[in-house]
Amino acid sequence: MSALSLDLRQRTSQNTHGNENTDKQTTGPSIQTSASDTDEDDLPVKPSKPMANQTQSSDVLDNALKDLSPRWRNWMIRGIFTWVMILGFAVLIYFGPLALVLVTFALQIKCFHEIITIGYIVYRSYDLPWFRTLSWYFLFASNFFFFGESMIGYFGVLLARTDFLRPFVTYHRFISFSLYTAGLVGFVCSLVKKHYLKQFTLFGWTHVTLLLVVTQSHFIVQNVLEGLVWVLVPVSMIICNDIMAYMFGFFFGRTPLIKLSPKKTWEGFIGGAFSTIIFGIILSYCLIQYDYFVCPVSYDESKESLSMECERSHVFLVSQYALPETIRAFFKLLGIQKTTVSIYPFVLHSIAMSIFASVIGPFGGFFASGFKRAFKIKDFGDTIPGHGGIMDRFDCQFLMATFVHVYYSSFIKVLNPQNIVQTVMMLKPEQQLQVFMMLRDKLTQRGLLDNTTASI
Amino acid sequence: MSALSLDLRQRTSQNTHGNENTDKQTTGPSIQTSASDTDEDDLPVKPSKPMANQTQSSDVLDNALKDLSPRWRNWMIRGIFTWVMILGFAVLIYFGPLALVLVTFALQIKCFHEIITIGYIVYRSYDLPWFRTLSWYFLFASNFFFFGESMIGYFGVLLARTDFLRPFVTYHRFISFSLYTAGLVGFVCSLVKKHYLKQFTLFGWTHVTLLLVVTQSHFIVQNVLEGLVWVLVPVSMIICNDIMAYMFGFFFGRTPLIKLSPKKTWEGFIGGAFSTIIFGIILSYCLIQYDYFVCPVSYDESKESLSMECERSHVFLVSQYALPETIRAFFKLLGIQKTTVSIYPFVLHSIAMSIFASVIGPFGGFFASGFKRAFKIKDFGDTIPGHGGIMDRFDCQFLMATFVHVYYSSFIKVLNPQNIVQTVMMLKPEQQLQVFMMLRDKLTQRGLLDNTTASI
Repeated sequence: MSALSLDLRQRTSQNTHGNENTDKQTTGPSIQTSASDTDEDDLPVKPSKPMANQTQSSDVLDNALKDLSPRWRNWMIRGIFTWVMILGFAVLIYFGPLALVLVTFALQIKCFHEIITIGYIVYRSYDLPWFRTLSWYFLFASNFFFFGESMIGYFGVLLARTDFLRPFVTYHRFISFSLYTAGLVGFVCSLVKKHYLKQFTLFGWTHVTLLLVVTQSHFIVQNVLEGLVWVLVPVSMIICNDIMAYMFGFFFGRTPLIKLSPKKTWEGFIGGAFSTIIFGIILSYCLIQYDYFVCPVSYDESKESLSMECERSHVFLVSQYALPETIRAFFKLLGIQKTTVSIYPFVLHSIAMSIFASVIGPFGGFFASGFKRAFKIKDFGDTIPGHGGIMDRFDCQFLMATFVHVYYSSFIKVLNPQNIVQTVMMLKPEQQLQVFMMLRDKLTQRGLLDNTTASI
Repeated sequence: MSALSLDLRQRTSQNTHGNENTDKQTTGPSIQTSASDTDEDDLPVKPSKPMANQTQSSDVLDNALKDLSPRWRNWMIRGIFTWVMILGFAVLIYFGPLALVLVTFALQIKCFHEIITIGYIVYRSYDLPWFRTLSWYFLFASNFFFFGESMIGYFGVLLARTDFLRPFVTYHRFISFSLYTAGLVGFVCSLVKKHYLKQFTLFGWTHVTLLLVVTQSHFIVQNVLEGLVWVLVPVSMIICNDIMAYMFGFFFGRTPLIKLSPKKTWEGFIGGAFSTIIFGIILSYCLIQYDYFVCPVSYDESKESLSMECERSHVFLVSQYALPETIRAFFKLLGIQKTTVSIYPFVLHSIAMSIFASVIGPFGGFFASGFKRAFKIKDFGDTIPGHGGIMDRFDCQFLMATFVHVYYSSFIKVLNPQNIVQTVMMLKPEQQLQVFMMLRDKLTQRGLLDNTTASI
């Protein structure tokens, strides 16, 4: 994994915008380049660069496309790999939620690697003792914590059945804390007088990366486990918004949107938003026809296997909504007596997600864009030919996933009676009875329960 | 709050250890001082410095002590303020848990201020647009999230009764996320081309500070709410360990312990550990005699007020422990037929806490020490005369609080039947009944329940 492609701006000094206002005067880390702030990031085309570690498939492609101009060749490569990624995503969906969790995990590690490598180069930390080892160790410790939490949340009862795993379930937080503390002690012991500043800077760098990558990819995993639709729809929305904003901007773009990304226009922004909303509604409507997409992953005790079947949550069942007065009046004029409309609640929720994907989502991209400029790099890596690093494709996805996670747990997730019963079952027998009695008393007190419970 | 005392090492160039191996060659932020790495941090004596913003009480003191040599004057000031702090802590305990929560909150804000101010100076960010505003905004947003979570966890049912507060309880995470996202958007919008690098560096700085200060002070608050003893004992342990390690080191210290703090010795380390264990046992034994210290804060529905009474948790009730075989044999030799011993479990747990306080706790201090050296500052501030900033006194307390929190939730906290019933009561009536029925079926199935429940 030593391959890295920090194409410091030196390489991309073509296409400058005449702005030589570089960061030379900053007191922060200095990379000795006479770099200028290009606006490369917003160009869908990037100059291809012969690189030792380019993947073989792209070598073959390079060969096949060698007669095209570099600009067109890159259009082609980028286009082909866009489809490769979309296809790969579809295959993943076919293989189901656990495959998706594993791939999220792998991508997360790659994103971490990309960002850490940038820190490693920016701060020229080649001779820092233990820095890489410690970074990877912290990644391990935080993943142990977060993924453990997810797994215990969903499969706790199942995992606790295995003798070997039970202590890991019971003492998960304590073990995680011990792992992390060991890393902290290791960091303190690795401090070397002449490197203090570098070491603390990189400690901060590692932790911000963990905060950004591990916590947010953990939200993706949780979304997957709540039902494939909670990942599939938002991921597609971001892709749709990217493409449509580019198209609208290309054809109608006049008014610049934000200084950070001079290629972005208001026309692209608004066109992208509308397209995303419509696309989101259609996609949502199609997907929620299938149980496979709407059911959370659960462990079926009777079949002793993971199940993708469920009793549908209310958001995936058609509901009657009262029409607003104005629309009702309009229908009356047309001679239609319609006072309610039948919609899947999820379709309405998809509009909220579309709005976030197209209004706030791009700020994830602007943030990444600013970050790359701050450290004078063009891409986070060169993992995907024509696209850059994994982080270049994931910048908006992370923020979106966090939004969906928070949205889901605030507005959709209902405290599942089944989960509560499961929690009670993890208590000692006498406590289980205590809960039962207290509950009986409370419910009787509230008049919900009398001695003949069956009558309710 | 503009007062700050970043006594860059220029001022403390006396007492150097002849090591001129400075960080000049690093690529990180450079403060133009010909500073040398002194080992001041470990000296209990610090040169007093006339400062405009010194508190009035300390001015009076300075005057009263003006005939003493600077060294002795500082010993006195430091000693007096040690007692002022211990007394203040005792008064706080008297005023009860809510006062302690409020003070934790205030101290947390001060710690944040101290660390942010260092970043502000180190990176010379005087002309950065919005940096301070954004930092404080992120502090507000993350406190809103964390303290909200605590309050909802403990007083959710109570808070949800007030019409005004109910939406804040129900949508707390969504509101927090929106607040944070607004900050992120604000940050992206505040980016200015020539300051990218500084702005991202300070963004990272702010977030690491939040991670360190807000999350950990949030753990202190949770410990307070679980019972005063969970704060009182660990805080005292750290203080005891500091003092005793210093005393043992002073009288018996020979073998250096760690390069980072050349004044620390193995003798001090071991002596401190033993003293802390014994001190912890005695203090624990004394405190747990009173309900005031062992009861969690709870809302008494019948009295409609906060209550400090409770049915004691099992860790605060005397238990019989079987003696190990060897000790039993030893007792037999003495003619004593003793096979069990009666101890409060909490006293045993206090030993685990003492060990952490004296073995791992100091690493919190080493970490802070290294941080101060990395950025060439002597103290985090000058809030407490003779001691430095609040952070200088809190470095180990934070790590300790996190340990206690994790320890408590892993080994002590039992899923409280009362809490589960409370959770059920927040469901819709028909779901409450559903839980009841499912529970009844499960318990009957397991043979824990038959029709005559009273017989169990």
